[in-house]
Amino acid sequence: MNEMASIIGDGQMALVLADALAVRGVPARIWSPFSRDATSLQITRRSPRLPEMELPRNTEVTDQDGLAFDGCTIIFSAIPTQHLRSVWRRLRPHVRADVCLVSVTKGIEIGTNLRPSEVIEDVLAGESNGVSDGSRRNASQRIVVLSGPTIASELARRLPASLVAASNHLQCAERVQELLRVPWLRVYRNDDVLGVEIAGATKNVIALAAGMIDGLEAGSNAKSALLARGLAEIARLGCAMGAKLDTFFGVAGVGDLATTCFSPEGRNRTCGERLARGESLENILASSTSVVEGVPTAKAVVQLARAHGIDMPIAQAVHAILFEGLSPEKAIHGLMSRELKVESVG
Amino acid sequence: MNEMASIIGDGQMALVLADALAVRGVPARIWSPFSRDATSLQITRRSPRLPEMELPRNTEVTDQDGLAFDGCTIIFSAIPTQHLRSVWRRLRPHVRADVCLVSVTKGIEIGTNLRPSEVIEDVLAGESNGVSDGSRRNASQRIVVLSGPTIASELARRLPASLVAASNHLQCAERVQELLRVPWLRVYRNDDVLGVEIAGATKNVIALAAGMIDGLEAGSNAKSALLARGLAEIARLGCAMGAKLDTFFGVAGVGDLATTCFSPEGRNRTCGERLARGESLENILASSTSVVEGVPTAKAVVQLARAHGIDMPIAQAVHAILFEGLSPEKAIHGLMSRELKVESVG
Repeated sequence: MNEMASIIGDGQMALVLADALAVRGVPARIWSPFSRDATSLQITRRSPRLPEMELPRNTEVTDQDGLAFDGCTIIFSAIPTQHLRSVWRRLRPHVRADVCLVSVTKGIEIGTNLRPSEVIEDVLAGESNGVSDGSRRNASQRIVVLSGPTIASELARRLPASLVAASNHLQCAERVQELLRVPWLRVYRNDDVLGVEIAGATKNVIALAAGMIDGLEAGSNAKSALLARGLAEIARLGCAMGAKLDTFFGVAGVGDLATTCFSPEGRNRTCGERLARGESLENILASSTSVVEGVPTAKAVVQLARAHGIDMPIAQAVHAILFEGLSPEKAIHGLMSRELKVESVG
Repeated sequence: MNEMASIIGDGQMALVLADALAVRGVPARIWSPFSRDATSLQITRRSPRLPEMELPRNTEVTDQDGLAFDGCTIIFSAIPTQHLRSVWRRLRPHVRADVCLVSVTKGIEIGTNLRPSEVIEDVLAGESNGVSDGSRRNASQRIVVLSGPTIASELARRLPASLVAASNHLQCAERVQELLRVPWLRVYRNDDVLGVEIAGATKNVIALAAGMIDGLEAGSNAKSALLARGLAEIARLGCAMGAKLDTFFGVAGVGDLATTCFSPEGRNRTCGERLARGESLENILASSTSVVEGVPTAKAVVQLARAHGIDMPIAQAVHAILFEGLSPEKAIHGLMSRELKVESVG
């Protein structure tokens, strides 16, 4: 393949993407926002965020903004949601208008309530920087959202996984499929960018609640009921915003939700479990090497639900636990004892 | 409450139902098809099928067909699918026409491809026995299907769980809600009897595949992708048969599927795991104290899929592993490497 990939970010997803690209023979460059992390990764070829993985030999590492996109034909954006805008503002002057942009971030930006792909578009379209506005305005057509059940430690061991490449730009989605065509990955195409991003963001909020069920030792019946009710409220929000119901049945919908709720390694699930066992949110976040996306996303999701007039009792309970001092025990009890009624998505 | 319940069957679900009914102050009688088991349960108040649970003091046990329904206002049917017809033929002469019938069986009858509630209806409608045919023909209106994520060992510990009471008869469904209104259970109503039964039957087949993924140590990303693809094929079959799509999003749909695929205690998941580790099906079934419903159901589901022209690759792979000697490893590999395409339920 005549491709060269830039990976923006040095977290878990950046590392496992570099591994898959290396196996496909695609040169990749990881850009880190932090000089010290870039140097350490460059020299040791290992990251404390995914210690079991060694960086492929042909993966470059840089912290130089001007080198981030040098020669690249495709960009993978793997930056935590709340830092996305500042990073892309910083890198914007160096982006060529004709590259495909692949976003793997799962969250909603606080304040704007924008999805990751919208934040990137917003930054690229917002300010002139020597490139014609016309090509900037087309950014959304070149964006692919890549999502699915992808616990990174499993990908580092090359265990099988499925993803969805969602885009309005068929050719970019097909290029992502081709770039990641390694034996352990299966990438489906989907044109519901909105639905895939809403599913990816909100599942982390539900996973916080799932972790609380684990912390309270309430069992897998309760967790599975929560998963079903959580999926219903995710779909309710997504469909109100214009997403397709089918998306929430897919690997990036219920698939990602299931792995996030049940894998012992999920960060959001683990955070919820520790909260229910009595640890403070501050302590948990301070001890985590990676961002727990569900925490800021809970704020944005509750705002989105309000804006769209959607009832999201689980997300609202998680928000109340995180930011309003409600006890997980009381919250779970409250969810279980809501008035008996006919269950429905609508 | 002025109710008296008969529970047909002495398996795990029969025992945990007796517990909930006792807490509600409802007298219950368990009928066992086997004299020896009935005597043992009557004396020891414990069953090898759920050793952690003690039978409530006010639960009677009988093996007498004539006593099975004596004085009862509602019947819970908790017999394995493939024995349902013979048991109900045996008990038919004693059924009063005006009682509500609650079916908790999850499966499809081999040969007829009937759902459990249909088998009961079929038996009750099929032969005259002194009660007018008119009241017999109304059996379907008095049937409630009770389903959901209900790992019995958790219910025995009274951990929280949700269920769905599906019926065309609102009053019977409401009576089931009322009978099971204990602090650890939440029962939703639903009028999609067909969808709830198809979901309950087919999830056991998908869980066999989920267990194989565990046996092959392929990870939770793979298992979650399987869950999503499995849910899609369950919904595809159900909708082709006339079920509502919403049902598969509910606790009796994705909720039950999740707990069956992820709980270490699930019988079908465990059976799949042991198969993938190289044990023979005969050995596994011989060593199980409870029926592994997914095994016979796989036969029926593959036939149903064929009859309705539905593609169910996971169920077909499970069938090939169980009955045609395909290796789990090859089957999982085959599922992962199917042609890349747009994912969809339809």
